[in-house]
Amino acid sequence: MITTVTLNPAIDKTYRIRELKCGRIHRVQQVTEAPGGKGINVAKVLHRLGQQVVATGLIGGYNGQRICHLLDEMHINHDFCRVSGESRLCLNMIDDQGVGTEVLEPGPAISPAEWKRMKDKCADLAKQSSFVVFSGSLPLGLDQSAYQQLVHLVQQSGAKAVLDTSGAAFRAALDACPFMVKPNLDEVRQILGANMLTREEIGQVIQEWHQHGVEWIAVSLGAEGAIVSRRDAGAWLAIPPQIEAVNPVGSGDSFVAGFVAGLAEHRSLEECIQWAVACGAANALEERAGEIVPDRIREFNPQVKLVRLSIT
Amino acid sequence: MITTVTLNPAIDKTYRIRELKCGRIHRVQQVTEAPGGKGINVAKVLHRLGQQVVATGLIGGYNGQRICHLLDEMHINHDFCRVSGESRLCLNMIDDQGVGTEVLEPGPAISPAEWKRMKDKCADLAKQSSFVVFSGSLPLGLDQSAYQQLVHLVQQSGAKAVLDTSGAAFRAALDACPFMVKPNLDEVRQILGANMLTREEIGQVIQEWHQHGVEWIAVSLGAEGAIVSRRDAGAWLAIPPQIEAVNPVGSGDSFVAGFVAGLAEHRSLEECIQWAVACGAANALEERAGEIVPDRIREFNPQVKLVRLSIT
Repeated sequence: MITTVTLNPAIDKTYRIRELKCGRIHRVQQVTEAPGGKGINVAKVLHRLGQQVVATGLIGGYNGQRICHLLDEMHINHDFCRVSGESRLCLNMIDDQGVGTEVLEPGPAISPAEWKRMKDKCADLAKQSSFVVFSGSLPLGLDQSAYQQLVHLVQQSGAKAVLDTSGAAFRAALDACPFMVKPNLDEVRQILGANMLTREEIGQVIQEWHQHGVEWIAVSLGAEGAIVSRRDAGAWLAIPPQIEAVNPVGSGDSFVAGFVAGLAEHRSLEECIQWAVACGAANALEERAGEIVPDRIREFNPQVKLVRLSIT
Repeated sequence: MITTVTLNPAIDKTYRIRELKCGRIHRVQQVTEAPGGKGINVAKVLHRLGQQVVATGLIGGYNGQRICHLLDEMHINHDFCRVSGESRLCLNMIDDQGVGTEVLEPGPAISPAEWKRMKDKCADLAKQSSFVVFSGSLPLGLDQSAYQQLVHLVQQSGAKAVLDTSGAAFRAALDACPFMVKPNLDEVRQILGANMLTREEIGQVIQEWHQHGVEWIAVSLGAEGAIVSRRDAGAWLAIPPQIEAVNPVGSGDSFVAGFVAGLAEHRSLEECIQWAVACGAANALEERAGEIVPDRIREFNPQVKLVRLSIT
């Protein structure tokens, strides 16, 4: 079993409106809804790939109930911790020109008692899981050590922790030595406080994290693919097939899902990387994050090019 | 008891954001929620005025449950018909300059079976009510005779129907002879297809509706007050005190609530008009629609000027 953890899930609402104008009243022509948040996107893709998956995290209120209902409709297992606040809405208002304007609610603040229950649930689920995937930012009320605490718990139970977050929460969690991390290039830049990075500098960061104990490191490069490195095995540049992207939101989450599915199936290192990149590309062809078509992955998989790097 | 009917209620969400820009991602700093829709605003004001009130209408889904929960928190009685769709959100995004941009969902489509149940509930509540107030536009799936059908049912039961809607639904409902109607000036213009109206023309419309059987007619004029006419008693221009409006949304609903409260307490014709105008003015001083301060009404009440009109 694979567990995905989303500490601040959302209802992703998409509104189609003619034109957004400040100070005006707009009547929405079309409303669509999906359960959202990065970890839930990972769960959606894992489910499509045929993996046994459970989505957990913190949900609250009527929006929380609705998130569960939407996951039920997709036949995705879930086991969330209930909190007293109301889960957030993330709105994307798309006009007739295809321009999207996003408005994101902050979500509920988490109390110490709620956090304690989340840790207990995470420890329980980890005991039944081969991998536990942590994705996205922290909700209000949690300090920056939150992922560090969860990664530590999970690795103690024998499951492998995969981490996809950013900033101080990411830096703190590195101390707990997650099995795999997947920052994107911007996140690496933020962590180093650098505007630009050479391939050598990325290599140094990767080396440093490996020395710290991280087994797998994937630095995603958007449409250019990813640099993926395994401790004691070296690094690869994975180049995706050229596609006309429809919506790249969720491609990083799809990459993580593809990778973890490959690891769970004990595929070779090269296969895992190819599968991950194919999932990211397939996601970019869909309007909705995480709703990939498995046939597309099989089509893209052999088209992913792997180039051995000497950066590590 | 007074019943208010809201056929397409909403959760009114207010977002505070720095500046709304097309194509950008915005993080909301503050979220507030209130149960909304014109009939629910009327219920809120009636409740504040100490009237025994029941809010009914059509609600659905998790948003519908949330509307009930928010009404419970305000101790406002409700008895809604459940529908299979999801009740709508109405968003107002207010920037640092105080400019509001509204985005309104369409709400659920109502099936014939759901409409049948609504009519039954409305007839049941009318039997226990002195007044039934119908406010706002019709949801999808109902034809323009919907208010006509409900007004007819209510008047048959002996309760008095008060109607505040617009367009074809309003025109159709006039045939059922509601006890009172409250269009605003724009709605009268729309009905007549006129850009401007003289006082004489308004008088002709009022006369016509009275001849049709409507007992009370109030044409609201925004900050300028209202023209109010009773069949066989003549018309008044009611001029509110001068105030610095904070948010006039809901002032028409507050006017209706004040008027009906006056009628329910068997107050004099002049007192009912003054009370209604004072409620409208008090509402405009609040950020939230329908959340008036009763002390303000008592303060404004003697300041409302009544001028006898010879238009009818």
